[in-house]
Amino acid sequence: MIKLLSGLLALLVAAAVQAAPLTLTSPSGTLTLHVEVNGDGRPDYWLTRNGKPVLDRSRLGFILADGAKLERNFVPSELSRTRVDTTWEQPWGERRYVRDRHSELQVAFEETGALKRRMLVIFRLFDDGLGFRYALPAQPNLQQARIVEELTEFAVSEAGDAWWVPGGEWNRYEYLTQRTAIDQVSQAHTVLSMRTASGLHLAIHEAALVDYAGMWLRRVEGQRFKARLAPAADGPSVVRDVPFVTPWRVVLVARDAAGLVAASDIILNLNEPNRLGDTSWFKPHKYVGVWWEMHLDTASWASGAKHGATTTNTRRYIDFAAKHGFRGVLVEGWNVGWDGDWFANGADFSFTRATPDFDIAALSAYGLKKGVRLIGHHETSANIANYEPQLAAGLDLYQRLGIDAVKTGYVADAGGVQAPGGRFEWHDGQRMSRHHLLVVTEAAKRKIAVNPHEPIKDTGLRRTYPNWVSREGARGMEYNAWGDPKNPPSHEVDLVYTRMLSGPFDYTPGVLSLTGRGGSPIPSTLARQLALYVTLYSPIQMAADLPENYQKQMAAFQFIKDVPADWSESRLVSGEMGSHAAFARKDRNSEDWYLGAITNEEGRALEIGLDFLTPGKRYEAQIYADGEGADYRQDSRSRIRIAKRVVQSTDRLPIVLAPGGGQAVRFRAL
Amino acid sequence: MIKLLSGLLALLVAAAVQAAPLTLTSPSGTLTLHVEVNGDGRPDYWLTRNGKPVLDRSRLGFILADGAKLERNFVPSELSRTRVDTTWEQPWGERRYVRDRHSELQVAFEETGALKRRMLVIFRLFDDGLGFRYALPAQPNLQQARIVEELTEFAVSEAGDAWWVPGGEWNRYEYLTQRTAIDQVSQAHTVLSMRTASGLHLAIHEAALVDYAGMWLRRVEGQRFKARLAPAADGPSVVRDVPFVTPWRVVLVARDAAGLVAASDIILNLNEPNRLGDTSWFKPHKYVGVWWEMHLDTASWASGAKHGATTTNTRRYIDFAAKHGFRGVLVEGWNVGWDGDWFANGADFSFTRATPDFDIAALSAYGLKKGVRLIGHHETSANIANYEPQLAAGLDLYQRLGIDAVKTGYVADAGGVQAPGGRFEWHDGQRMSRHHLLVVTEAAKRKIAVNPHEPIKDTGLRRTYPNWVSREGARGMEYNAWGDPKNPPSHEVDLVYTRMLSGPFDYTPGVLSLTGRGGSPIPSTLARQLALYVTLYSPIQMAADLPENYQKQMAAFQFIKDVPADWSESRLVSGEMGSHAAFARKDRNSEDWYLGAITNEEGRALEIGLDFLTPGKRYEAQIYADGEGADYRQDSRSRIRIAKRVVQSTDRLPIVLAPGGGQAVRFRAL
Repeated sequence: MIKLLSGLLALLVAAAVQAAPLTLTSPSGTLTLHVEVNGDGRPDYWLTRNGKPVLDRSRLGFILADGAKLERNFVPSELSRTRVDTTWEQPWGERRYVRDRHSELQVAFEETGALKRRMLVIFRLFDDGLGFRYALPAQPNLQQARIVEELTEFAVSEAGDAWWVPGGEWNRYEYLTQRTAIDQVSQAHTVLSMRTASGLHLAIHEAALVDYAGMWLRRVEGQRFKARLAPAADGPSVVRDVPFVTPWRVVLVARDAAGLVAASDIILNLNEPNRLGDTSWFKPHKYVGVWWEMHLDTASWASGAKHGATTTNTRRYIDFAAKHGFRGVLVEGWNVGWDGDWFANGADFSFTRATPDFDIAALSAYGLKKGVRLIGHHETSANIANYEPQLAAGLDLYQRLGIDAVKTGYVADAGGVQAPGGRFEWHDGQRMSRHHLLVVTEAAKRKIAVNPHEPIKDTGLRRTYPNWVSREGARGMEYNAWGDPKNPPSHEVDLVYTRMLSGPFDYTPGVLSLTGRGGSPIPSTLARQLALYVTLYSPIQMAADLPENYQKQMAAFQFIKDVPADWSESRLVSGEMGSHAAFARKDRNSEDWYLGAITNEEGRALEIGLDFLTPGKRYEAQIYADGEGADYRQDSRSRIRIAKRVVQSTDRLPIVLAPGGGQAVRFRAL
Repeated sequence: MIKLLSGLLALLVAAAVQAAPLTLTSPSGTLTLHVEVNGDGRPDYWLTRNGKPVLDRSRLGFILADGAKLERNFVPSELSRTRVDTTWEQPWGERRYVRDRHSELQVAFEETGALKRRMLVIFRLFDDGLGFRYALPAQPNLQQARIVEELTEFAVSEAGDAWWVPGGEWNRYEYLTQRTAIDQVSQAHTVLSMRTASGLHLAIHEAALVDYAGMWLRRVEGQRFKARLAPAADGPSVVRDVPFVTPWRVVLVARDAAGLVAASDIILNLNEPNRLGDTSWFKPHKYVGVWWEMHLDTASWASGAKHGATTTNTRRYIDFAAKHGFRGVLVEGWNVGWDGDWFANGADFSFTRATPDFDIAALSAYGLKKGVRLIGHHETSANIANYEPQLAAGLDLYQRLGIDAVKTGYVADAGGVQAPGGRFEWHDGQRMSRHHLLVVTEAAKRKIAVNPHEPIKDTGLRRTYPNWVSREGARGMEYNAWGDPKNPPSHEVDLVYTRMLSGPFDYTPGVLSLTGRGGSPIPSTLARQLALYVTLYSPIQMAADLPENYQKQMAAFQFIKDVPADWSESRLVSGEMGSHAAFARKDRNSEDWYLGAITNEEGRALEIGLDFLTPGKRYEAQIYADGEGADYRQDSRSRIRIAKRVVQSTDRLPIVLAPGGGQAVRFRAL
């Protein structure tokens, strides 16, 4: 990209200065982008959809720590226009083939003053969204960018509702989604999703967050949002040598919820293609693990009598996995460092030394014989100053033992990261964007897949680094063990239209016991736990409950055994923000389809047209539905109705969802 | 203060650890403060008024750049309790005597971990508000505080409306006030004012902002606000050697608008007493100046044919001032540096060299002979890297010439300050808090009063440094020359209940021509321009219009000539947030009272009881009222009705305010 920009800059000399707004139209003409400098030479952009405003005039530029702002006295010129219509294949994902169809406009802004600094903005316009990024080309008067703040704005034109979690808060992304008027948002993380009065569906996010600070959105006034970069502890939010490009700023624009979900492919399209070469060594899979019992507080991460990660206990999980076809067994608390206040004592963690009661070598070998792999675990307590020096050795150990996936963790006491030099850093600051990519690339060298918890947000980098397979980055299932409150049913619906637009989420569903710590009820029906495997996408899916609990629910458990973790197609077949979501997905390795539907606190009757099935083909629909009178608030939550019937693409499937309920269906091709 | 704290710390050893919440009751029992650590040892405070919640549990603490947060694992202990009831005299102000009646509680929080760091919080509870500040005492494990962020919260209990301007925006404080629901605020500057559903009036601000970053308020969710410190360009928001104390965080709590205005004395009470000794050399006064004509664009700051600051033109103003009793003549554009784009070329300003057409020495001498002083002007274009090295010489020049007041300016192209080392800084960051105090103390050495425009916000430091006499810090009259929009009538009403709670504002009223640039109408009635001298307090008040315009309105101008700029008493006699404001103030140097009333866009009839007048005494009420049919939207805006009648304290004065109108009354003691 840098090389491309340098080449294009040569054109600058010849390019005519533009007086009228530059415009760019999306391939089918749905969206139109406008770019213009105002009377002060200040660059603005705005966006219309079929002639109606989507974003009003919104600013572009930078505040620098040690120089005049890149903000005004700019003359714009058009550098290039291109059109792209291509389809690329994912190694794994929600769909096998992704179409990338967009118009691109590159604009150079050159200062009229003495410094003559140059700032490029690359716009890509899709029919269902806009991406743009800044590029600072090599130039004499700007050799290093010390960025205090971006001036980037998103001025939403139309009133409506917003779904969001607070940005720049200490509990990272782990909040229940707030639904407010757009003009009641304060400072939000992205994905910030909106539905306007006229029914337009919008989401603001970013793509390809590499060596840069995460973008929060601060509402300045009315419906005008401004980028705020996650701060660094000491110094500007971002320090980069020039030339470089920023992450893409992304606005998804769709006319309905299904369109919004589909538009999220834009985030992948804006990322660079796979840099790792063949990553077929990563196999999407399901896993179990020594985990839920710690959240129930019946076992401990710490060593001692309650220690969960013992050789004996792990062997039990391996046997269970082998028997039921799970590839992975996660073991948390296997290593030295968990004793004492591990939230605060991240410096104690060893990533190579197991506790004496955990024979990691023997367990790995035992699993491999049975076709089961241990899944590694690197909890750092957000102390990367301790973790980074041990990273290579820790991954080497796993590679040696045949452990080809690792869950990392950055729990901190609702606080920041401890970086080298005693520095405090944000979970989504520039330093952590570098850290996560370091872990991912070091793991890739060893053919290990990475699944960070308490991570930096997903910005589609799985396309470039396909071993970055999943992550957390929202309130997961563990809140149903001990949360106050637990995750209400609306939470998982909200996830579909916010967090899930950014990429896979290791939510760890499937708690069929529907009980958390001390036997406390989980606000979900039983069928809903199954539906989550289809509604919340991840190429690694945990069956989070205890083996003994699955033994009591073998009929329902069958769905978890059947459901794949890799898809050739995915689509939202029914859904509304704040209400419900039903996905149909096709298994990547068979002709089977799966359906998962969840609702919020309200019961709901849907009728799903089965036109996604192959016409003329017959399927056995294996239906896992909420039982009669099921309700997430009552003991009836465990009632499930399992039935079979033969269907085909011309059929319509009536679905009744209990309050807080769900439904899972396997369409087995006959 | 530091010394005091060290002494108190010795008590810590003996102090018993408190388990139950510490409580503190205001002198009359109206407010109660509660302080407690939660289960994690995290300090919280909350506030009740007559048993009803005002602030819910709100956090205290700090994020540090290079160490663990000061947030939890604290054990609280009570260090001291004191009660104060004292009255002190202002050298000048809204009132001569200020009563300071409060209960104080000092709480020490000591960490239980290895670091055993100590954080003190000093609470002062008044019947109409709370102030608290942190003190970090000398201690081995915290020698320098590098503060990324405060954890201080203000969780407002009750729903209601908020009046605010966006904080952390590039146009400093110069915004029209937004009125939204409290839970629609995004990030606000203080003063943030609120009126709850039950009628409680609240305002959050700070006091004694010294060597620290200004506090913005970010709404996190619901009605919970969190302090955000104005960032530094490069490094933590605040860097301070320990021991030190922070500014006071202030919450004003009153049952009505008059109570809120009265409660603002708390901000002064929380500041340290006068450190400058005798400052009687500063005389509150009114002034005219070479200023409005530049805003009209009929003269220029830059040299050349349109130059306003010529010897000839200034002599005209001196003659006018002498004739009509104005002490001061401000002259902007008198010095070298205004040519070219002075918004951007702050490095060109000289603070000692006048333009060739401005004979500063001769003009000063000419004025002094007539009892008129030039008022100095130091526009910096926010380039303090250029200003600070010249500061002493610039002030020396003024002292030598008998110029004893200076208006400073920090205009920047909607951007930040250029500090030494090429650093970008915020107008209200720690660096600028130091800069302003440097200017004030250097000026005090030379017996010069300071009036900064585009300043850091007022936090009551005029008590400690009485030569810091006024400032801007909001949209002033110049927006009525060229603003788009101009200041609507509601703006000045909103100022009373927000910005004015913080202290004097050099709003520069009195544009009796009611016309801005190109003859454009100003949204005000004529009588309102007079009323502003009473409603918007400043000890220096400009008569902003051109001398030739005053010549056309000598009857109305009489009020501007009569009205004093120093008061012995002030009270809001009628007013509601968002509606109107009427102040009665007593001249400090006579028995006369003055009344000024303004309304928003709506006409309004008030009846003011005159019980503020001395009983039994007769006064001639000189009434400047909106004329029949006057309306700020129409040519009738200039209609004024001037009348006289004799009144006494038992009378009630009916007042009719036109839409966008006002009324001014002088009660001349007979």
